[in-house]
Amino acid sequence: MPLHELTAAQLVRRLAVRDLTAETLVRALLERIDQREPVVQAWTCIRREALIRNAQDLDRGAIRGPLHGLPFGIKDVFDTHDLPTEYGSPIYKSHQPRVDAAVVSLARQAGALIFGKAVTTEFATFPPGKTRNPHNPEHTPGGSSSGSAAAVADSMVPVAFGTQTVGSTIRPASFCGTVGYKPTYALLPTTGVKAISYCLDTVGLFTKTVADLALVTAALTGRPLEVRAETARPRIGLCLTPQWPHALPEVQALFARLGAEMSEAGAIVSDFALPAPYEKMHDAQAAIWDYEVARCLAGEYAMHREQIREPLRGQIARGFALPWADYEAAMTLARDGRRGFDDVMRDLDVLVVPSSPGEAPKGDATGLPAFNRTWSLLHTPAVHVPYGRGPNGLPIGFQVIGRIGDDARTLACAHWLQSNVASADRP
Amino acid sequence: MPLHELTAAQLVRRLAVRDLTAETLVRALLERIDQREPVVQAWTCIRREALIRNAQDLDRGAIRGPLHGLPFGIKDVFDTHDLPTEYGSPIYKSHQPRVDAAVVSLARQAGALIFGKAVTTEFATFPPGKTRNPHNPEHTPGGSSSGSAAAVADSMVPVAFGTQTVGSTIRPASFCGTVGYKPTYALLPTTGVKAISYCLDTVGLFTKTVADLALVTAALTGRPLEVRAETARPRIGLCLTPQWPHALPEVQALFARLGAEMSEAGAIVSDFALPAPYEKMHDAQAAIWDYEVARCLAGEYAMHREQIREPLRGQIARGFALPWADYEAAMTLARDGRRGFDDVMRDLDVLVVPSSPGEAPKGDATGLPAFNRTWSLLHTPAVHVPYGRGPNGLPIGFQVIGRIGDDARTLACAHWLQSNVASADRP
Repeated sequence: MPLHELTAAQLVRRLAVRDLTAETLVRALLERIDQREPVVQAWTCIRREALIRNAQDLDRGAIRGPLHGLPFGIKDVFDTHDLPTEYGSPIYKSHQPRVDAAVVSLARQAGALIFGKAVTTEFATFPPGKTRNPHNPEHTPGGSSSGSAAAVADSMVPVAFGTQTVGSTIRPASFCGTVGYKPTYALLPTTGVKAISYCLDTVGLFTKTVADLALVTAALTGRPLEVRAETARPRIGLCLTPQWPHALPEVQALFARLGAEMSEAGAIVSDFALPAPYEKMHDAQAAIWDYEVARCLAGEYAMHREQIREPLRGQIARGFALPWADYEAAMTLARDGRRGFDDVMRDLDVLVVPSSPGEAPKGDATGLPAFNRTWSLLHTPAVHVPYGRGPNGLPIGFQVIGRIGDDARTLACAHWLQSNVASADRP
Repeated sequence: MPLHELTAAQLVRRLAVRDLTAETLVRALLERIDQREPVVQAWTCIRREALIRNAQDLDRGAIRGPLHGLPFGIKDVFDTHDLPTEYGSPIYKSHQPRVDAAVVSLARQAGALIFGKAVTTEFATFPPGKTRNPHNPEHTPGGSSSGSAAAVADSMVPVAFGTQTVGSTIRPASFCGTVGYKPTYALLPTTGVKAISYCLDTVGLFTKTVADLALVTAALTGRPLEVRAETARPRIGLCLTPQWPHALPEVQALFARLGAEMSEAGAIVSDFALPAPYEKMHDAQAAIWDYEVARCLAGEYAMHREQIREPLRGQIARGFALPWADYEAAMTLARDGRRGFDDVMRDLDVLVVPSSPGEAPKGDATGLPAFNRTWSLLHTPAVHVPYGRGPNGLPIGFQVIGRIGDDARTLACAHWLQSNVASADRP
């Protein structure tokens, strides 16, 4: 198996015993990137010489930690002290932070190798970047973590950081056909990540497998998150969500098939409907984001308005015009929804929900986050697992949603799903 | 009355009708600063010529908003695009951000004049800055918002931004004898503020009066927060808190006197004890802060460790050594405590609680946050109101604590207290 196809777990095992050097790995990935980057355009900056030097340093020194030598792609909304950080905006052209974002530093502390900066949409909002879907360059990779999702899906790096405020991790994971993870809100620190919503911004991860998510997250937080293949029969609620009418026929068909296959594989599967107040979460998320993105980008809007593209500029104006009462009502709904969510889940371990309305759409627009807003607002963990293909041959998958804070069980169930049911249908 | 003695409300009224120019006001405050700064040392940077030019621009242009011409002091952990921002650390010497922190930009948008940067302790933690208590330079002003509290207490500016993660707004307000406000968590965005705890960091304010807090906060958020003098009889719980043994005799005596005076003034006053789980909040706050400060400053710790002073360096090491289970237990306690706090408050409007163990201590150390940790962890609003003097002639006051999100009622009750009971015992 070529090195770029290996999972993070396979790589760190070999790197830790020096069966593989970081330099060899980096050179293999650079070769992969040489082949694929002209089409995929996942990266804003890779400094090859410094990268190889850093790999050599790791090879010469002691084993630093559980991620020793593991290459990470970094969405370009995370500060890096040795790579420019432009947040997808010309306002920050050549911006060079003094220190790393918290998770970047934590990754380095655990031995990771920061590989390069990956394309983000403008400030991790809607205006797209240059990245293309690795399965078909005429289609969007999704956004806003476009480069991170495409780079991992296309085996350029085994791990990448993204973010999610609306649907920016789960949606591109779905469109590119890789595993994606939005942890419980604030499990991974957002310090040093360009903010667009202080109540919603979440650091996310892309890997090839759910087991890799657990490995990396445990290393970054100190939290025990090991997943085992022999997880007992998971109790799974199939949840159409109020956004079900957005789901295209291929998603509807695959969802039904998935339910049947999970039952066959031993899960206890039942249909599940969210209680009425949760139907309003989708719109409440939109209101909160509008209000907060206007505040988060107030400085850029005041000083560099002409350099902010539509629809972001209009969204900021809308956010400033939103009455306080609307924001407060949305915040109250969110708070009550979070408080009640344990009860809503009853005796279920997790929900399984569509990740996106369909395959990656053709063109530049990054697709609808209809199936993501509710979970971003509720602060639940969400894990995207690839499952099948749509009529255009592009990936389709589903997300596993858990209780707030219950990332261990959510990852375990997603691992069960990936191990026992989902076709390993990656590029 | 000299201009520097006027409240924010008095100033914006006169500025809005051009009865007072921003330039005249700025020159009067600069004169005050010329007299007092050699002793108080509240500022890291004031650019006089640019400041006067900005004031002249405001005087020549249209009225910009409800804070037109109102001078703000800015704690030096808030990014400012036109003033260096050093976070109280040599690591950030001459650091110049590209854009303003969110609240700085929102203040400008409402017409405020950014007056200068005020001294912070190192990264808003414990190692003190140069500022002295304006009542007696041998005593601490408290921390970490040392310069902001001292500048407002000493009438150098009518308003200043601070932050609170532990006790960094309420404690210096108490020691310097001015009104201080820690709003409900996330009411004011922390975007562009140097982070030291993503679950606790809160933007705070210092003013001369509670009415000024309401005026400024409403202007920054769009939230209606008008306070009225004729508030009906407030229902107030006198809460000693589990930290009562830390209170010095003078605080204990003044607290008893305050209870009696509030009753005489018409409040419905009762003794109030926090339920048992809340006794653990103090220590839980310390654990969460240790864990998170290590993550927030991971980049600085990795790259510039020798430039981080004790006890902060030791605290970061302690945070990295803290077992995940301890952090998780503290987070669970906090979440449950927040969820249950409305019920805890029963039929009370607010609690009244000591703000600090006593007067400002002599020396450099910024004092104990014993009476602040619980409310920082719970995300409640807290308003400090000056009340009396201690044996050294230094200010002592108390904080009004409200339900989470109930800033309107909390400010109204604090305004009632300041209007009807508290001696206007300011410097």
